[in-house]
Amino acid sequence: ISSKLPYAGTTIFTVMSKLATDEEALNLSQGFPSFDCSPLLTERVNHYMKKGFNQYAPMSGIPPLRESLAEKTEKVYGISYDPETEVTITSGATEAIFCAVTAVVHPGDEVIIFEPAYDSYVPAIDLNGGTPVYITLAAPDFKINWEEVKTAISSKTKAIIVNTPHNPVGNIFTREDLDALAALIRDKEIFVISDEVYEHIVFDGEIHHSMMTHPVLRERSFVCGSFGKTYHTTGWKIGYCLAPKVLSEEFRRIHQYITFSTVTPMQYALADFLKIPSHYEELSRFYQDKRDKFNQAIQASRFKFTPSKGSFFQIVSYKEITDEYDYDLAVRLTKEIKVASIPVSVFYNDKIDDKLLRFCFAKDDEILERAGEILCRL
Amino acid sequence: ISSKLPYAGTTIFTVMSKLATDEEALNLSQGFPSFDCSPLLTERVNHYMKKGFNQYAPMSGIPPLRESLAEKTEKVYGISYDPETEVTITSGATEAIFCAVTAVVHPGDEVIIFEPAYDSYVPAIDLNGGTPVYITLAAPDFKINWEEVKTAISSKTKAIIVNTPHNPVGNIFTREDLDALAALIRDKEIFVISDEVYEHIVFDGEIHHSMMTHPVLRERSFVCGSFGKTYHTTGWKIGYCLAPKVLSEEFRRIHQYITFSTVTPMQYALADFLKIPSHYEELSRFYQDKRDKFNQAIQASRFKFTPSKGSFFQIVSYKEITDEYDYDLAVRLTKEIKVASIPVSVFYNDKIDDKLLRFCFAKDDEILERAGEILCRL
Ligand SMILES: CSCCC(=O)C(=O)O
Ligand SMILES: CSCCC(=O)C(=O)O
Repeated sequence: ISSKLPYAGTTIFTVMSKLATDEEALNLSQGFPSFDCSPLLTERVNHYMKKGFNQYAPMSGIPPLRESLAEKTEKVYGISYDPETEVTITSGATEAIFCAVTAVVHPGDEVIIFEPAYDSYVPAIDLNGGTPVYITLAAPDFKINWEEVKTAISSKTKAIIVNTPHNPVGNIFTREDLDALAALIRDKEIFVISDEVYEHIVFDGEIHHSMMTHPVLRERSFVCGSFGKTYHTTGWKIGYCLAPKVLSEEFRRIHQYITFSTVTPMQYALADFLKIPSHYEELSRFYQDKRDKFNQAIQASRFKFTPSKGSFFQIVSYKEITDEYDYDLAVRLTKEIKVASIPVSVFYNDKIDDKLLRFCFAKDDEILERAGEILCRL
Repeated sequence: ISSKLPYAGTTIFTVMSKLATDEEALNLSQGFPSFDCSPLLTERVNHYMKKGFNQYAPMSGIPPLRESLAEKTEKVYGISYDPETEVTITSGATEAIFCAVTAVVHPGDEVIIFEPAYDSYVPAIDLNGGTPVYITLAAPDFKINWEEVKTAISSKTKAIIVNTPHNPVGNIFTREDLDALAALIRDKEIFVISDEVYEHIVFDGEIHHSMMTHPVLRERSFVCGSFGKTYHTTGWKIGYCLAPKVLSEEFRRIHQYITFSTVTPMQYALADFLKIPSHYEELSRFYQDKRDKFNQAIQASRFKFTPSKGSFFQIVSYKEITDEYDYDLAVRLTKEIKVASIPVSVFYNDKIDDKLLRFCFAKDDEILERAGEILCRL
C-alpha cells in the first residue's frame, strides 16, 4: 500500500502528550486546557441527553446553534452570516479546514501557506492533489512580507491559508495585514481559508481582526472556528465554518459525505452557552493572566522571548543555552526535567530549526509555576 | 467555484426528514431510532463529563474503548484485532468509510460498488480521483452474481466496497459470498471496504458474516462499524474501523488530519457499555420484532415485499399500485397521507426506478402501527 502522506508520522501532539504521560512530566505540549469546562455547560449537555437529543443532528448543525453563532458573530464583529445558508457546524475545526480545502483545491492547484504552519494544512492540500507553496516567516517577529506573497501568487494559486491568532507563534494579523491580503486577491479567483480558532484569545488590549471584517475577504473566506478552544472542551470536537452562501454550499456538499453531522447534545448545550457573552468576553483576560504567570515564571530562566500576542502558546528561544536540535531538546526536557513542550521545527516543511520551543499556557497556575521553576534551573 | 460533486444535492435523508417534520408526517425515512438510548448510557456520559473527561481523546480513540471493542469482536466473531494498532475510533462510520477510501484510492483507480449503494460511497471515491465501477443488483432478491464482479475487475481495480446487512435492501452476505469475494481478490492487490454498521441487526436466526471472518478478507479489509446504530445513539457520531496494522497505519495517517479525534466522554461511556453483551446480543430480536410489527401492519396493503433479512429497513414494491416515479411518490405520501419514506432510486447512479420505497422500522411500535394503518388505505 503506497502512502499518500509518506512524510506523516504520528502528529507531534500525540507523540509529546504520550511521552509526557509516560514520563509523568508537566504537559505544556499539546494545546488543550489542563482545567475543566464550566459545570453549567456539562449540566446542559446532560439535560439535553436526558431529553432524548441523542439522534442525528441536521447535516449543517442544529438551527439553534447556527443561530446563536450568527448572533454572536454579529455582536462581536458586526458582520452577519445567514444561519440557514452560511453557517455550518463541523466535527472540530480540523474537519472544517479539511472541508474548506477540499471544497476549493483541485489537482494541480497551488495553495499558499505561511510557515510555521499548523500540521493539518499540508496533508489537506496534498490529499486534494494540490501543491503547497511555502512562505517562510522568520523569528523573532514572524511578520508577513506581503510583497513576498505577491511574488508567490501564480495563475495556479487557488487559495491562501491564514491563521490568526497564530499557532505556534502567538502573532496576530493587523488591520494592515487584512488590507494587504485583500489588495492582492481582489481581482483574482483566490480563496482564503482562515483558521481563527483562538479568536477570543488576544492580549494587551489588541483586537482580533477576523477575515470577515474586511468586505473583500468576507466574500472570499472560509472562516474556521472552534468551540473547544473557547469553552475548554477540546474533547467535544465541535467547530464551524462561516462562508458566503456559494462557498458554504460546496463546503456542505463535502462535509455531508465526510462526517455528515456532529454530536447532537453538545450542540444544544453550546447553543445555550453562546448567548452568555461573558463566557467569551472574559477569555482574553483569563488567558492573558496565564500567559503573564508563565512568562513571569520563566523570567529568570535563560530562555529569550517576546510575549505572545494571542492563542494559548508562548514560544521561547533557547539559542543561548544549547544548540541541540529542538526535537531532541523537547524530548530530553520531558524525560530529564519533566516538562513537555513542542519543538517549533515540526511546523516547517523542511524542519527549519530556529532553536525554538512552544509552551502551552492553558494550564493550571500551579503547573505553570512549577514548570517555570524547573525551567529556570536549566 | 467549480464543484467536485456537481451531482450532489442535499442528501435524501436530510430532504425527507425535513419534509416529514414540516408536514408533521410519521418519519419512516431517515435511518435513526425514534426511541432513546439507555438512560444508563447517558448517565455514564454524564459521569465522565463530571469527572473532567472533556479534552482531546487520543487520535486513534481512548484505549479502554479500543480494548472493549477488540474484546467484543473476539467474543462475537472469534477474530482478534490488536487494540493498539488495528482498531481506530472515528467520528461516525461515514468518516471511517471516507478515510478507508482515501487511504487506498489514488487518482485513476477503479472501485467496484454494488447498487443500490449508500450515498456516501461514490462521493468518497470521486473526491479521491477514483472511478466508481457499478454492479447493479436487481429486485426482488438483489443477489450478487460474482461472475459479473469477476468481469468488472480490471488492472485498475483498487478496492471493492461491500455492505452487509445491506442498506437500503436488507440483504445479508452468506458464507458463500465471502468465499466468492475472497477467491476473486486473493491473488490481486485489491482491498475491501466493508460497511457493517448493522452487524448486530440480523433476522430469522441468520448470522452476520463479517469480512473479518474470512482469513483472506481479514487481511485486506477495512471493517467499518457504528456505535450509533447499535446503541440507539446515531447523534453521537462514533464509529470505528478494524483493519490489519499496515492498513490501519495509513487509515490513521488520513484520520488524524480529517477530524483528529472523536468526542471523549461518549467514548468512555461506550467502553463501559460494550462490556455488557446483552445490549448487542438482544438487538437482533428487538429489531426483528419491529420488522414483524411493521410487516404485519402493511400486510393488508397493496405493497409487495419479502421480509428484510437485516438492518433496520424494509423495502416494498408499489408496482401494482401506481407507476409514479418513486421520488414523487415518496414526497406525495409524506404530504398527503403523512408517512415519510425513502425512494430507492436515489441509491442508484442513474436513478433506476424499480418502484420501490424504503421504510425504516427503527420506530416506536405505535408509529409503525399507525403508519401501517395509513398505508393500508392506499
Ligand atoms: C488536535 S491536537 C493539537 C492541539 C493543538 O491545536 C496544538 O497543540 O497545536
Ligand atoms: C447519515 S443520515 C442517514 C442515515 C442512514 O443511514 C439512512 O437513512 O440510510
